[in-house]
Amino acid sequence: MRHFTSVHDIGDLKSALERARFVKENPFADKELGRDKTMLLIFFNSSLRTRLSTQRAAMNLGMNVIVLDVNQGAWKLETERGVVMDGDKSEHILEAIPVMGSYCDIIGVRSFAGLTDKSADYSENILSQFIKYSGKPVVSMEAATGHPLQAFADIITIEEHKKCARPKVVMTWAPHPKALPQAVPNSFAQWSAAAGYDVTVVQPHGYELSPEFTKGCKIEYNQDKALEGADFVYAKNWSVFDDANYGKVICKDMDWTVSEKKMALTNNAFFMHCLPVRRNMIVTDAVIESPQSIVIPEAANRVVSAQTVIKDILKTL
Amino acid sequence: MRHFTSVHDIGDLKSALERARFVKENPFADKELGRDKTMLLIFFNSSLRTRLSTQRAAMNLGMNVIVLDVNQGAWKLETERGVVMDGDKSEHILEAIPVMGSYCDIIGVRSFAGLTDKSADYSENILSQFIKYSGKPVVSMEAATGHPLQAFADIITIEEHKKCARPKVVMTWAPHPKALPQAVPNSFAQWSAAAGYDVTVVQPHGYELSPEFTKGCKIEYNQDKALEGADFVYAKNWSVFDDANYGKVICKDMDWTVSEKKMALTNNAFFMHCLPVRRNMIVTDAVIESPQSIVIPEAANRVVSAQTVIKDILKTL
Amino acid sequence: MRHFTSVHDIGDLKSALERARFVKENPFADKELGRDKTMLLIFFNSSLRTRLSTQRAAMNLGMNVIVLDVNQGAWKLETERGVVMDGDKSEHILEAIPVMGSYCDIIGVRSFAGLTDKSADYSENILSQFIKYSGKPVVSMEAATGHPLQAFADIITIEEHKKCARPKVVMTWAPHPKALPQAVPNSFAQWSAAAGYDVTVVQPHGYELSPEFTKGCKIEYNQDKALEGADFVYAKNWSVFDDANYGKVICKDMDWTVSEKKMALTNNAFFMHCLPVRRNMIVTDAVIESPQSIVIPEAANRVVSAQTVIKDILKTL
Repeated sequence: MRHFTSVHDIGDLKSALERARFVKENPFADKELGRDKTMLLIFFNSSLRTRLSTQRAAMNLGMNVIVLDVNQGAWKLETERGVVMDGDKSEHILEAIPVMGSYCDIIGVRSFAGLTDKSADYSENILSQFIKYSGKPVVSMEAATGHPLQAFADIITIEEHKKCARPKVVMTWAPHPKALPQAVPNSFAQWSAAAGYDVTVVQPHGYELSPEFTKGCKIEYNQDKALEGADFVYAKNWSVFDDANYGKVICKDMDWTVSEKKMALTNNAFFMHCLPVRRNMIVTDAVIESPQSIVIPEAANRVVSAQTVIKDILKTL
Repeated sequence: MRHFTSVHDIGDLKSALERARFVKENPFADKELGRDKTMLLIFFNSSLRTRLSTQRAAMNLGMNVIVLDVNQGAWKLETERGVVMDGDKSEHILEAIPVMGSYCDIIGVRSFAGLTDKSADYSENILSQFIKYSGKPVVSMEAATGHPLQAFADIITIEEHKKCARPKVVMTWAPHPKALPQAVPNSFAQWSAAAGYDVTVVQPHGYELSPEFTKGCKIEYNQDKALEGADFVYAKNWSVFDDANYGKVICKDMDWTVSEKKMALTNNAFFMHCLPVRRNMIVTDAVIESPQSIVIPEAANRVVSAQTVIKDILKTL
Repeated sequence: MRHFTSVHDIGDLKSALERARFVKENPFADKELGRDKTMLLIFFNSSLRTRLSTQRAAMNLGMNVIVLDVNQGAWKLETERGVVMDGDKSEHILEAIPVMGSYCDIIGVRSFAGLTDKSADYSENILSQFIKYSGKPVVSMEAATGHPLQAFADIITIEEHKKCARPKVVMTWAPHPKALPQAVPNSFAQWSAAAGYDVTVVQPHGYELSPEFTKGCKIEYNQDKALEGADFVYAKNWSVFDDANYGKVICKDMDWTVSEKKMALTNNAFFMHCLPVRRNMIVTDAVIESPQSIVIPEAANRVVSAQTVIKDILKTL
């Protein structure tokens, strides 16, 4: 039994990147591995890239795939014990999860942060219960505090494009109209540091991420200074992690938008973003359409990261 | 052509249970049977267990599966002839059903009771039209008055756990905040009597089920008395069958909740429920979490019952 | 790379009909062709026949199929450059489309006309962008101005039923409570003329279709006169194409309903409709239930037309 919820579950990253390269070059080499195995993908939140790329990855491995969209309005799960369930919640998670586990061999779960209860989000209460009660290996398809399949795809993409052994990678906060989770920036900071890059995280004051995830990264507040000499610019919005304003938007300063002027400060950096991206908020049209923008190959590598992870798990079954 | 809508469609139950045992032990033995065959699953109502387990069953048999969610709001079907269709119903069931039949080899249909028009519900108007017009074998995935795939899974589960040849099986009504169909209790009563068990159905006055389904069962009104010496307790809520109050909730007496005190009256009975279950309405946390609770293996057997039925049908194609 | 969006993409129609006949007689002959290939079906609008028949067609060819329902409310795509995306559109089509293309081998797209902006509809702005940006072959599963998979199925059906080399085919407008696109009648007019039939299109004044699509068809305004001697009657409603009333309903004259009296004017014609059909608006119960009604085999041929087109494309990959 192996779960995949963070960088700690991939083992040695160098070796994982080699496995990913093999998968990319030989996408159909392991179809026997998934024969008669079923992947169940459970979405508590909407999804485009993750939905399509994870299905594709499992199919490439010869698996059957079942997709379940949990409309939270239609099927609310009780999570507390002792509650008299006479309201709108028709099933308890303690029944629902083991039942779902009994119908498949591997479970993928997408469940975003609620951004109102920090301790619930950072305890990963949904994902943890799937791990505890499903009886099957669980793959995070973006949980409350991390999106490791995205970060793995990001690192694969950097490896394919980097021009020196230890590139300077700058993850910069950028403005967005709505409050977004910290899952993607948490994971990118953690994985890029684990990959041994020279990583800088830059954000406005008050937007510092959890130190648990940015360990090994330089923390900056001046975007122009941070971008100097960057080989890769990873733009992303996130809401506040700090207790006082957890989950809030406290800045929409459009001077943080990644523009051609900003990119001119870099070492002709590649531009990355996990998508979907708000143009002219996060990044200008000119930058995302430039030859240095690698957002599409980055998204395409989502199949590769998912397939590498699922293949690893299939080998343990 | 064979349909599966009730216990009468499974043939000799002893032999069916043997086929089920083979399927459970050899889930992938019959993949050639479903090769190039397509199972279409049509849901007029929401579903978790049925959706996943029936997909899994068909895939285990090597079939292709297509799932169609019929949002009744979006796609209302006219069922009457002679109507000028100038309203919100954009298609007549007399076209929709044969067309769906033309795209598949077997059709699974889920369509709940409306609980307002008893004669419409008990004539199984939706299911009957699929049988009449689709030109393909039809499998009930819970219809207005029966849920035979659930009952078959229940019997498989009892056979796996029973400690004497003819166990005492007690199906007890239990309180629930909303009006529920009689489909599950109808089928469980019918199938467990057909299995030759010593079956008691116990409910408050006014909640008697259709005698058509409880034939061969003892009918009780005193839950404590009924539970005495029980080997299996099957809890379930249902709404009123009686004409005067059809589809209504006339009792929410919490004394009917299956508690440890109630279970103490039994012969250390196993606890069963079809799920989803309202905890502390139908059953207490302590009972459903006890070692005697077999609700999860019962749900897991939904794959076995569906696969046995679909396999039987595939053999006739 | 080959797209399929109109009659011009099928090549010589006689030869295409021969390929269709082979596909119908040998549905599983080409399963190796689709091995390890993925078909992505994207629905911006609801669908029954197209959804099921295209899935079935791709599966018959051994492909993996991924279905994506784009709820336009939940996932609005920005299509303009230069816009500051601070509103309800969370992704730009310039990212979304190439990403979707990167996860599959062939893309099917359903996107109806909005019926408010004629030039947007007739420029096929959604379909064109998939062709331009996805990097993959695109199959129209009904676009704003055409439904070529339907028309191809219609022609296959006529070939199977015609009793003379050049049958008289009459497409007649018929009343409907809502405004419908011109996609189906546009394509049927175009394909049936291309098939060399003697085609008449009859409609009330003001309902003339685009001459681009009705080239080679006779245009009539008197339904009774048009129906005289018809071998096939193809009923369909559409909204106004004319600039002044584009997308509007300007007539609901029930005298245009195809009745037994109307059919009596024909040469014992077959009755056709693409479905879904409003009974007793478009056609009476008696006519659609008569032995001359071929709407069900016509719908069944949707698998054949889709499979022929997808097979052609697979051969080019």
